[in-house]
Amino acid sequence: MSSGPKPITLTTDFGLIDGYAGILKGVILGIAPACRIIDLSHEIKPFDRASAAWLIANSYRYFPAGTIHLVVVDPGVGSLRRSILLKGAEGSFVGPDNGTFSRLLKLIENPTAYELTEAEYWLEDVSNSFHARDIFAPVAAHLAAGVKPLQLARQIDIASLVQLPEPRIIITEDTIEGEIVYVDRFGNLVTNIPADKIQQNASISVAGTQCGTLAESYSGGKDGEPVALLASHGFLEIGINQGSALRFFGGGVGKPVVARFRPGR
Amino acid sequence: MSSGPKPITLTTDFGLIDGYAGILKGVILGIAPACRIIDLSHEIKPFDRASAAWLIANSYRYFPAGTIHLVVVDPGVGSLRRSILLKGAEGSFVGPDNGTFSRLLKLIENPTAYELTEAEYWLEDVSNSFHARDIFAPVAAHLAAGVKPLQLARQIDIASLVQLPEPRIIITEDTIEGEIVYVDRFGNLVTNIPADKIQQNASISVAGTQCGTLAESYSGGKDGEPVALLASHGFLEIGINQGSALRFFGGGVGKPVVARFRPGR
Amino acid sequence: MSSGPKPITLTTDFGLIDGYAGILKGVILGIAPACRIIDLSHEIKPFDRASAAWLIANSYRYFPAGTIHLVVVDPGVGSLRRSILLKGAEGSFVGPDNGTFSRLLKLIENPTAYELTEAEYWLEDVSNSFHARDIFAPVAAHLAAGVKPLQLARQIDIASLVQLPEPRIIITEDTIEGEIVYVDRFGNLVTNIPADKIQQNASISVAGTQCGTLAESYSGGKDGEPVALLASHGFLEIGINQGSALRFFGGGVGKPVVARFRPGR
Repeated sequence: MSSGPKPITLTTDFGLIDGYAGILKGVILGIAPACRIIDLSHEIKPFDRASAAWLIANSYRYFPAGTIHLVVVDPGVGSLRRSILLKGAEGSFVGPDNGTFSRLLKLIENPTAYELTEAEYWLEDVSNSFHARDIFAPVAAHLAAGVKPLQLARQIDIASLVQLPEPRIIITEDTIEGEIVYVDRFGNLVTNIPADKIQQNASISVAGTQCGTLAESYSGGKDGEPVALLASHGFLEIGINQGSALRFFGGGVGKPVVARFRPGR
Repeated sequence: MSSGPKPITLTTDFGLIDGYAGILKGVILGIAPACRIIDLSHEIKPFDRASAAWLIANSYRYFPAGTIHLVVVDPGVGSLRRSILLKGAEGSFVGPDNGTFSRLLKLIENPTAYELTEAEYWLEDVSNSFHARDIFAPVAAHLAAGVKPLQLARQIDIASLVQLPEPRIIITEDTIEGEIVYVDRFGNLVTNIPADKIQQNASISVAGTQCGTLAESYSGGKDGEPVALLASHGFLEIGINQGSALRFFGGGVGKPVVARFRPGR
Repeated sequence: MSSGPKPITLTTDFGLIDGYAGILKGVILGIAPACRIIDLSHEIKPFDRASAAWLIANSYRYFPAGTIHLVVVDPGVGSLRRSILLKGAEGSFVGPDNGTFSRLLKLIENPTAYELTEAEYWLEDVSNSFHARDIFAPVAAHLAAGVKPLQLARQIDIASLVQLPEPRIIITEDTIEGEIVYVDRFGNLVTNIPADKIQQNASISVAGTQCGTLAESYSGGKDGEPVALLASHGFLEIGINQGSALRFFGGGVGKPVVARFRPGR
């Protein structure tokens, strides 16, 4: 590892049109000039906290330990919701306390939660509508430059953090019932059914439509027909070889998915 | 500050599909290998100089002093329009002389204008259709690496720069009449009415539709109804909590906005 | 040149919504923390290998010598297609063996081809659906950090690489018949007719519609009428001043283009 500042990743629903993401980087470079900044996504659907929660939970582990992840999908900006920092062995997460970190809480080791309280580490004028620029980016930059959590924040109870409703999952001996939790740009439908809970002989259905058994890869599927596979993020996923499962099923998030295991012999 | 090259920001209408923005970065890294390059936006609507003028004027102040801003929305590429450099205390701006820097001229301290004349600092073959690659990116990179304006350019009269038409604003004792000048990806309508000219008790209307008085934040608004607030860029803005004011009003740029002050007591 | 790691460019059809491109950068920074990473495009139309082949062939020469280009448009991921490295004097190219490098093969000097074989340079768990993350990004990062091709791969016959079908071009004394091979975000139609094969007095037609003779720049065209020019990438291109030639002609890739030379005097 280089001995410079830790990298910072950015996950927002700001889009790439208006310069908002670029401004965050300007603020960071003003505080930590050598900091590496990586866009994870600025195209989260506006206000879609559940997709942000999914995305960061499935991405953070590919970044160097100590990376700081700014995650701001913030419909409540300017209201009384808290500004928080979640720190674990693998990295730190900065953003509003609105459930975006729900999934992370079950994944990261030794999580500690903090509320951002020390305004001397924020921009001088804090607006009511752009805390990513005025609070979260400066805090992330100071963390990257080596400032300690307790200089920026006070520790709070992990159990006090806002949680998003959990997608439904029921695991029995011969079936798992889950649901679609994320749709990617290819129209692949990502479920909440973990790969390591599925038997290789499982037969899969989405909203009552059979998708056959597990395939090795999308290119193993027949053209135009849905394929189920254990995807790179570690969950069951439904796709269509060179096509869109979202279009095939006429919808995505929330649809029920069932994996049924044939009796072994 | 690091002692390396100054950062460069990029604002264009090139989009992110065709690799044009990436090529600019390749050219810059060939000249200034350690230069930090930040995308401000490549999604300016094609040929929309007014939006580019708004965006850079509201973004530059968040970057470290000395940052070089390349701004290329250039419908006249290959015609006789000049290639210019505008330098102020806060940073430098490089691009075609077509009005994109109009707003900046009123904001930056001690502006000096130059026409780019020294072809030895450009790519060897200059095309008629991609001056961002052939002229502006190399010039920005040389500036970042420490080359002085007068090595690259000759000084010209600030008053000679092309100006965009100014959006209309009329300020009286009890009203301000302005207009929508920019629409962001959330459908928020940005006006040219400065926050510091507005009284807290102002009542706001857009194209004749009442939007009530100033709110503290979007989350203060009723669902589906327009909210007026003094936004993070320092201007009056009209938005809808988790919705689109652009869709609500059936349009954006150019619509009249009136702030009416109730008599004080 | 700096003495640090070589830069890496990224060209994929992953889009910018789902964090896939950001994850590649996390993997790269974990191996080569000081590596510069430049997005060329993540908006290649899904599975469109021909556009990727065009884009990389027209972009690589603007990057510093030795740059490593990751190009992954990979409908066959998880099938038996090979993972390859193509190395030339100007840079290295990493991706699946599916024709994306077809155009490059005719352009780069002294190309050598390798098949990626050494799994110790990949991520520990290789999925069936995300080789960009598990194989190509780590390999690119190791190359950037100085690992040699033969440590990662075994040399293979250049002639064994998969080729895309070549767009049709017929050159005679008084005409060139080519076709549209790429459409950019402005709706400009890029042909496979090389600028250096065209005489200045050529008259151009697209699918039978006359576009007049060569213009100096788009701003030379009449509003709403197609203009032919020798564009910045070195090929004949058809555009419309501040408009879309794609819309004008009702389509793009594959349409025939003819350049007819008037007899000289």
